[in-house]
Amino acid sequence: MNPQAPTQSKRPLNVLQKATNKQVCVRLKNEIEYKGKMANVDPYMNVILVDAEETENGSKVANYGKVVIRGNNVLYVKIEDRL
Amino acid sequence: MNPQAPTQSKRPLNVLQKATNKQVCVRLKNEIEYKGKMANVDPYMNVILVDAEETENGSKVANYGKVVIRGNNVLYVKIEDRL
Amino acid sequence: MNPQAPTQSKRPLNVLQKATNKQVCVRLKNEIEYKGKMANVDPYMNVILVDAEETENGSKVANYGKVVIRGNNVLYVKIEDRL
Amino acid sequence: MNPQAPTQSKRPLNVLQKATNKQVCVRLKNEIEYKGKMANVDPYMNVILVDAEETENGSKVANYGKVVIRGNNVLYVKIEDRL
Amino acid sequence: MNPQAPTQSKRPLNVLQKATNKQVCVRLKNEIEYKGKMANVDPYMNVILVDAEETENGSKVANYGKVVIRGNNVLYVKIEDRL
Amino acid sequence: MNPQAPTQSKRPLNVLQKATNKQVCVRLKNEIEYKGKMANVDPYMNVILVDAEETENGSKVANYGKVVIRGNNVLYVKIEDRL
Amino acid sequence: MNPQAPTQSKRPLNVLQKATNKQVCVRLKNEIEYKGKMANVDPYMNVILVDAEETENGSKVANYGKVVIRGNNVLYVKIEDRL
Repeated sequence: MNPQAPTQSKRPLNVLQKATNKQVCVRLKNEIEYKGKMANVDPYMNVILVDAEETENGSKVANYGKVVIRGNNVLYVKIEDRL
Repeated sequence: MNPQAPTQSKRPLNVLQKATNKQVCVRLKNEIEYKGKMANVDPYMNVILVDAEETENGSKVANYGKVVIRGNNVLYVKIEDRL
Repeated sequence: MNPQAPTQSKRPLNVLQKATNKQVCVRLKNEIEYKGKMANVDPYMNVILVDAEETENGSKVANYGKVVIRGNNVLYVKIEDRL
Repeated sequence: MNPQAPTQSKRPLNVLQKATNKQVCVRLKNEIEYKGKMANVDPYMNVILVDAEETENGSKVANYGKVVIRGNNVLYVKIEDRL
Repeated sequence: MNPQAPTQSKRPLNVLQKATNKQVCVRLKNEIEYKGKMANVDPYMNVILVDAEETENGSKVANYGKVVIRGNNVLYVKIEDRL
Repeated sequence: MNPQAPTQSKRPLNVLQKATNKQVCVRLKNEIEYKGKMANVDPYMNVILVDAEETENGSKVANYGKVVIRGNNVLYVKIEDRL
Repeated sequence: MNPQAPTQSKRPLNVLQKATNKQVCVRLKNEIEYKGKMANVDPYMNVILVDAEETENGSKVANYGKVVIRGNNVLYVKIEDRL
């Protein structure tokens, strides 16, 4: 395998797509985090989270049944190993 | 069903479109929230809310019969289960 | 009528276009509001207001015979029912 | 005439173009204002002002023989009736 | 001549191009100014200044033999009459 | 070799691609740094880091098994020589 | 030669390209500066610096063997005459 020619399937946006239905933690530019199941994501990083909770500085602030986060606010998406 | 190949209809912008006429809560980047019936939304996340109320830190600030929110200000759209 | 398939004419930018010549309140990202007759608007949300007044925190600051607001500054456009 | 179908010539950018050589007041996002004759403007709202003066909080700060303002900084262009 | 139909050559970006090799003052969004000979400029307002000086609040801060300013930082370009 | 005509393969985004699987330090605009193995990167500078740690002002803040950083937040990517 | 018709090769992005392998000082919007050899640059002003040092308010903060700076953060690139 040649690390200089990664296959298209390993590109960041494809890896995100493959994490559909996994637990993720989305941190936004305003420092707030949302943890939940990533029901879907698109190439702009618009994300649908279900059964999500919002945390600020580690403490839970609110719960969300279903929320669509606009991609331009996203700082990162952390993919949790546990399902 | 293959979670790695979600159908197009489950993409974030399509899910938003399907929530037309549902109650939503739109939070903007400036932390202000608008709750009301989402009369319509487009792919840029421009949103029309009717019978909306603006809340800041949980207290109602103003009422809106019909308001068009410019999409680039949107942090997220929370879809309420209740109609 | 199927709410999942709204007609094109109800999209946010079209609804704004139809509000031409109505009284509107345009709030900008810097919190300042402009109220007046919306003589025109384009898809970028560039807005022409005539006989407008600028208010900040509810008190009138200035009057404008004719002003063109650059769309990227717009937070929302509230459409007034009264003409 | 149908207000729901404004002619193209009344669109915001066209109205601005027609105000060429008129006195305008350009307010920027940083709150500073520039008053002068608008020698030209393009669809991005890049503006050429001649014989302009810069004012901040109402007091004159500087004079400009000819200045090209980059459009993305523009908050609004107020078109003065007087020539 | 019809002021409502300015020729293409008078558009803001063309006027800037014609000011090549003239003395200009470029003010950036961060309030810092750069004065020097504008060796070149492109439609994005990327500017090359030579023999430039940087001033902040009117006092000289630094000298630049040749500097390329990224256009998106530009607030305005003031074209000096003197050469 | 002509330094004025660098080959395409030495362009910044290509150099980044070639650093796939190397240790990198990604600094974001909010001053936070993420160090880890860059599993992949795309032309927008969206980055996948694995076995990453977040540091702020030099002290470790958190660990990340796998994180996708949205490119528009990136200030720079420092490529570590050591593997 | 007509200064009103500069050749394409003198455009800002071309001049930057020609400065490949020269010493440059890149100042970012956050006021931090990076000095080093510009190994490459692309039209977005993404820059590769090698043997670079970071300075803040004139004092050295860190050293970088090889760093890729994302173009949108760049305020200017100063091209040093000395090699």
